Amino acid sequence: MPEPSANPLASPQYPSPLPPGAAERYVRAFTDQLLASGVRHVVICPGSRSTPLTLVFARDQRWRAWLHIDERSAGYFALGLARQLGEPVALVCSSGTAAANFLPAVVEASLLRVPLLVLTADRPPELRDVGAAQTIDQVRMFGSHVRWATDMTPADGTPALERAARGIAARAAATSMAAPAGPVHVNFPFREPLLERPVADPLPPAGHPVTVTPSVVTPAPEAMRALLEAARGKRGLVVAGPEAGGLPASLVTSVARALGWPVLADPLSGLRAGEHDLEVVVEAYDVLTRVPAFAREMVPEVTLRLGAAPTSKALNVWLAAHPAIDSWVVDVEGAWREPDATVSTMLRGDATSVCRALLEELAPGDSAEAGWLERWRDANAVTVRALRAGADALDEAFEGRAPLELAEALPDGATLVVGNSMPVRDVDTFLPRLGRRVRIEGTRGASGIDGVVSTAVGAAAAGLGPVVLLIGDLSFLHDFNGLWAVNRHGLNLTVLLVNNDGGGIFHFLPQADLAADAFEEWWGTPHGLDLAQAVALHGGHHVRLDGARGWASEVAAALERPGLQVLELRTERVRNVELHRQVIGHATRALEEALAGRAASVGSAAAGVTS
Amino acid sequence: MPEPSANPLASPQYPSPLPPGAAERYVRAFTDQLLASGVRHVVICPGSRSTPLTLVFARDQRWRAWLHIDERSAGYFALGLARQLGEPVALVCSSGTAAANFLPAVVEASLLRVPLLVLTADRPPELRDVGAAQTIDQVRMFGSHVRWATDMTPADGTPALERAARGIAARAAATSMAAPAGPVHVNFPFREPLLERPVADPLPPAGHPVTVTPSVVTPAPEAMRALLEAARGKRGLVVAGPEAGGLPASLVTSVARALGWPVLADPLSGLRAGEHDLEVVVEAYDVLTRVPAFAREMVPEVTLRLGAAPTSKALNVWLAAHPAIDSWVVDVEGAWREPDATVSTMLRGDATSVCRALLEELAPGDSAEAGWLERWRDANAVTVRALRAGADALDEAFEGRAPLELAEALPDGATLVVGNSMPVRDVDTFLPRLGRRVRIEGTRGASGIDGVVSTAVGAAAAGLGPVVLLIGDLSFLHDFNGLWAVNRHGLNLTVLLVNNDGGGIFHFLPQADLAADAFEEWWGTPHGLDLAQAVALHGGHHVRLDGARGWASEVAAALERPGLQVLELRTERVRNVELHRQVIGHATRALEEALAGRAASVGSAAAGVTS
Repeated sequence: MPEPSANPLASPQYPSPLPPGAAERYVRAFTDQLLASGVRHVVICPGSRSTPLTLVFARDQRWRAWLHIDERSAGYFALGLARQLGEPVALVCSSGTAAANFLPAVVEASLLRVPLLVLTADRPPELRDVGAAQTIDQVRMFGSHVRWATDMTPADGTPALERAARGIAARAAATSMAAPAGPVHVNFPFREPLLERPVADPLPPAGHPVTVTPSVVTPAPEAMRALLEAARGKRGLVVAGPEAGGLPASLVTSVARALGWPVLADPLSGLRAGEHDLEVVVEAYDVLTRVPAFAREMVPEVTLRLGAAPTSKALNVWLAAHPAIDSWVVDVEGAWREPDATVSTMLRGDATSVCRALLEELAPGDSAEAGWLERWRDANAVTVRALRAGADALDEAFEGRAPLELAEALPDGATLVVGNSMPVRDVDTFLPRLGRRVRIEGTRGASGIDGVVSTAVGAAAAGLGPVVLLIGDLSFLHDFNGLWAVNRHGLNLTVLLVNNDGGGIFHFLPQADLAADAFEEWWGTPHGLDLAQAVALHGGHHVRLDGARGWASEVAAALERPGLQVLELRTERVRNVELHRQVIGHATRALEEALAGRAASVGSAAAGVTS
Repeated sequence: MPEPSANPLASPQYPSPLPPGAAERYVRAFTDQLLASGVRHVVICPGSRSTPLTLVFARDQRWRAWLHIDERSAGYFALGLARQLGEPVALVCSSGTAAANFLPAVVEASLLRVPLLVLTADRPPELRDVGAAQTIDQVRMFGSHVRWATDMTPADGTPALERAARGIAARAAATSMAAPAGPVHVNFPFREPLLERPVADPLPPAGHPVTVTPSVVTPAPEAMRALLEAARGKRGLVVAGPEAGGLPASLVTSVARALGWPVLADPLSGLRAGEHDLEVVVEAYDVLTRVPAFAREMVPEVTLRLGAAPTSKALNVWLAAHPAIDSWVVDVEGAWREPDATVSTMLRGDATSVCRALLEELAPGDSAEAGWLERWRDANAVTVRALRAGADALDEAFEGRAPLELAEALPDGATLVVGNSMPVRDVDTFLPRLGRRVRIEGTRGASGIDGVVSTAVGAAAAGLGPVVLLIGDLSFLHDFNGLWAVNRHGLNLTVLLVNNDGGGIFHFLPQADLAADAFEEWWGTPHGLDLAQAVALHGGHHVRLDGARGWASEVAAALERPGLQVLELRTERVRNVELHRQVIGHATRALEEALAGRAASVGSAAAGVTS
C-alpha cells in the first residue's frame, strides 16, 4: 500500500459521532418520500459535497438518474423533462457556484410553472460565511424565484429529524405541483465523512410515507354567473395563451363552439395542434390584427383569456388599443399575468374548472351573432393560404418556411420545442393548425434564449415520442454544453437550426435604423463559428439544408436516425427582414382584397335588396 | 418603403412624454460619473432592453467596450479583467434570465473581493410581475452576494434624478472598491422608446462630477502592541493565503525577516513569485506538514495570517490540530475568513497597514530563536529538490510536472491563471518560488470549476502581459463559450489543458474506494469529447504535448504565437493518483532522511560536547 501521507489531498477523516448508517438513513427518509410523492427522475451534477444524495439516487434502481456536467444546462434539462412528464424532477448539485448556475432555469421554471425540486448540497453551518472552499450563501439563494425554500438541519441521528425530512420531501413535491406549479429549493448541509461503508441490515428511516392531497380549485359561482352574463350573445374571443403542457384543448374549443367565438391559439397554448375541434381555431391573428380593414371591424366586445399573455405583440397591442373590451383573464390565486393592464375581471380558477363550469350552463341560444365566428374563420383561411402562397413564391431560403416544413414533417405524438427570439415568432405566424397530436413547447416564462437546447434534450429524455427543436444560432451556442447530454444518454434529438450568424430579431427593431452606426457590432453580433464543426464535436450528424423548400423530407429522414441530428438552414439577417415583409405583405394584401370583395358583394347584395 | 404593417414585430412606438434627449441624458449622468470615478472598461451582452446603456458605451470612445454573447462567461470575463487591472469593470445585460446568468460570477467576485459594477437592464415598474416577456424579479436579485444594490427610477426628465444618478454611479464605483472590494448591482428600468434620433446640441446632464475619497484603514494601536508582544522572540509563521491581486510582497517578507519567521506562501498570495525577498519564502509546506518528524517538531507558537485561508488542506489541518498556537488573522471589517475556527485574535486592518505598523516597531532583538527560520528553509529546500527529482525520475506524463514546466517557461511580467480542482493543488505542491514578476491568480472565492476560462480571457484583455491558463478538461468544457471572446477580440491566450477525461480530483477522495460501484459514472464522469476539435471550433491552435517532459519550450513557443493556443496534456486519472503518491512519497522520504541525518549529526555533536 502506498504511503497514505503521500496523498496530496488526504486529510484525517474524523470518526463520525453518528451511529453507523444514521447519515444515510436521514437522506433516505427524504428520498424515499420523494418516491412516495411520485418523483422518479433526478438530474445530477458531479461533486463531492453532494455525495450522500448522489449515492442514494445512483444506487437505488427505483430512480432514473441523469448525469450532466454543466449545472446551467442541467437545470434546463430537468425543466424540459419535468414539463414533458408533467411531474416534478429533482435536480442535484454540489455546494458553491454550482448552485448559482441553476438560477436561470429556476427563474424560467417559476415563470413557466414547471415543478422542479432543486436539491443543493451545502457545507454544514460551522463552515458557512467563514471563507471555507466551495461555500457560498445558499440559504434562500433563489429569492422570490421559488415557491418554497428550506434549509435542512445536518443529520444528527435522531428519529425526529428523519420524520421531519419525510415531511419536507412530501411538502416540497406537493408545493412544486400545486398551482401555479414551480421550483422548490431544499438546501442540504452535509458534514464529513460524506460516506461510510455500507451498513449490514440497515434500519429503515423513522416514520412512514406522507400523503399530501391537493385541493380542488374552482371559480366562485357568482363569478361564473357574471361571466356567462357578460359572454352570452356577445361578439367575443377566446384567447388561448402559452401554457406549459398545454391548456385543456377539447374543453376550450367546446366553450368556443358554444359561444360562437373563435379561439385565437398561441402556438404554445396546446390548441394549435391536436385532435380537438380545430374548426374554431384561428392561427393567423398576428396578420389579421395588423390589417386595418379587419382590425377596425372585428373588435370584440368580450375576451376570455386562458394561459399567459400571447406571444403575438400585434394581437396584444390591438386588444390593448380598445379599452372598451370587457376583458376576462382566468388564472389561479397568486398569479397576475397581465402585462398590458387591460383586464376587467381577473377570474380566479384554472382553465379546466372554468371551462367545465361554462359548459354546464351554456345553451344553444348563447352564441354570438351569426357570422361572427365565420368572418374570423374566413379571414383566417384567406390569410393562412396567402402566407403559404407567399412563402411558396420565394425561390430562396426563408426562415418563415421552417414552420411550414415542420408542419408537414412532424408525426403524430411528436414534440416541437421552439426557441425564443425569431423561431417562436415565425412559428406563431407561419405554423398552421395541425390535426395531429403535436406538442409545441417553448420557454416563454422569461423568454430568454438561454437553456433552450437543454429543455429539448430533457424533453427527449422523457421518452414520450420524437422531439424536434427549432432554434436560432445564438440560442444554440448559448446552451452549447446542453448538447453533450444527447450522446451521453443515448437520446434522439432532431434540431432545425436557423443560422443567420447573429441576432436576427434585432433587425426588426428601431435599433437597426436609429443606431445604424453601432448596429452590426452590438446587436447583429455575428459569431463567425462553423456550426457543422460544433455539431461534430458532440458526435452529431449535420445536414445543410439547401434550396428554398423541401426540408420536410430531411426532417422526416432525420427523425429516422438515432442520436443528435442537426439540419442547418443558412439565412441572411437583412434579407430575412425583407422576405418577412414580402410574404406578410402578400398575406395582408390578400386579406384586404378578400375583405374588399366581401364588402363589395355585401354592398351589391344590399344594393340588390334596395333596388 | 415596404409596408410597415407587414413587419411581423413592429409595434406602435408611442411618442415619449419626455423632452428630446432627456432619456439619454439620464443615462449619461450615470456613465459620465462612472468615467469620473475611474471606470474605463465595460463588458456588454447583446439585448434590446439594455439599448440605452449599450449605445452610450458603444458611441463614447472614452469607453473600452467588450462584447460577449454568453452572460455567464461575460461575468467571469469582467471579473478577470477587473482583477488584472485592480479597478471596477462594468457589466451590462438585457432584462430577464440574462441577468440570472451573472450570478456565478457575482458570487465569485464577492468572495474573491473583485470590484464589479453589474448593470442590469430591466422593464419599467408597470411591466414587472405581470407576465411581461423577458421580465423577472431583478430587484436585489443577487441577494447577499453584492456589497450594495439599488433599483433606479425610470427617467422622468427631472434634473434632480440626473444628479441622483451621478451620486448612485459614484457610490457604486466607490463601494465596489472599498475593502473588501466586491460586486455592486444597479438595476436600470427602461421604458420604450429605447432610443431616439440624436439631439442636436444636447444639454449636458445636470449636476457635476462627484468625488468619493476612501477612508484609510489602520489597525488599532493597542492591537498592534499586543501583536508585537505576542510575536517578539517567538517561533512563528507568516501564513500568506490567497488574495486577488496579491498581498504586498515586500512588506510581508520584510516583516518575516525582522521576526525571523518563514512565510508559507500560497501560490495565489502574490508571494510565490516576484522580486521581493524570496529567501524567507517556503513553498513546500503541503509536504512538510505531512511528514510526522517535521510536523511534530516545527509547531509554531504564533501564526500571523494575511489573505484567505490557504489552499493546502494539509497545512490547514496541521495548524488546526494544535489549538495552543496563538493564531492571528488580519482582515478588514466585516470579513471572517476563518474556516477552521482556530483564530485567537482577529486583527482588523489590511495587510499593508499591519505590516507597516509592525516594521516601524520591530527591532533586531525581536527575531525568533536562532535556527527556526533556517530549519524551515533547509527542510523546504530538501523537499523542493526532491519533488523536482521525483518528477524528473518519471518517464511518463505526470500532471504535477505541468507547474514545473510553467516555472521554466513563464517570462517576467506574465500572469498564470490557475484552475480549481487539481491544477491549483498541483501548483501549490509543485510550483517553486520564482524570482520573476509572475502573477498567479485563481478563483478561490467559491473555488468552482466554472468560469475559469473567462477569467483568463478577461486577464488577457487587460493587455498587461502574456497570460497562461492551467486548467483541467471539465473546467475547460464548463466555460467553453468563454473561448469565443479570444478570437472575437483579437486576444492572445495560451492554455495548458490537462485532459484526463473527467474529474481527476475525485480519485483522491474516499468516494473512489467506498463508492467504487458508482464511482466512474458519478464522479469519474468521462466526457468523451475530442478537445482538439473543441479548440478548432474557436479558431485556436492545438498542440498535443508528448512525452514526459520538455513542455516548457512548447509553452514558450505558444507565447510567441497570436490568438488562442492550446497545449493539451493527456493523462489518466487512476494513474495520476499513483504518480502523485510516488513523487510525493519520494519527497517525504528525502525529508525524513534529511531530518534523521540532522538529528544524528546534532546527536553526535552533543555527544562530542559531553564526551
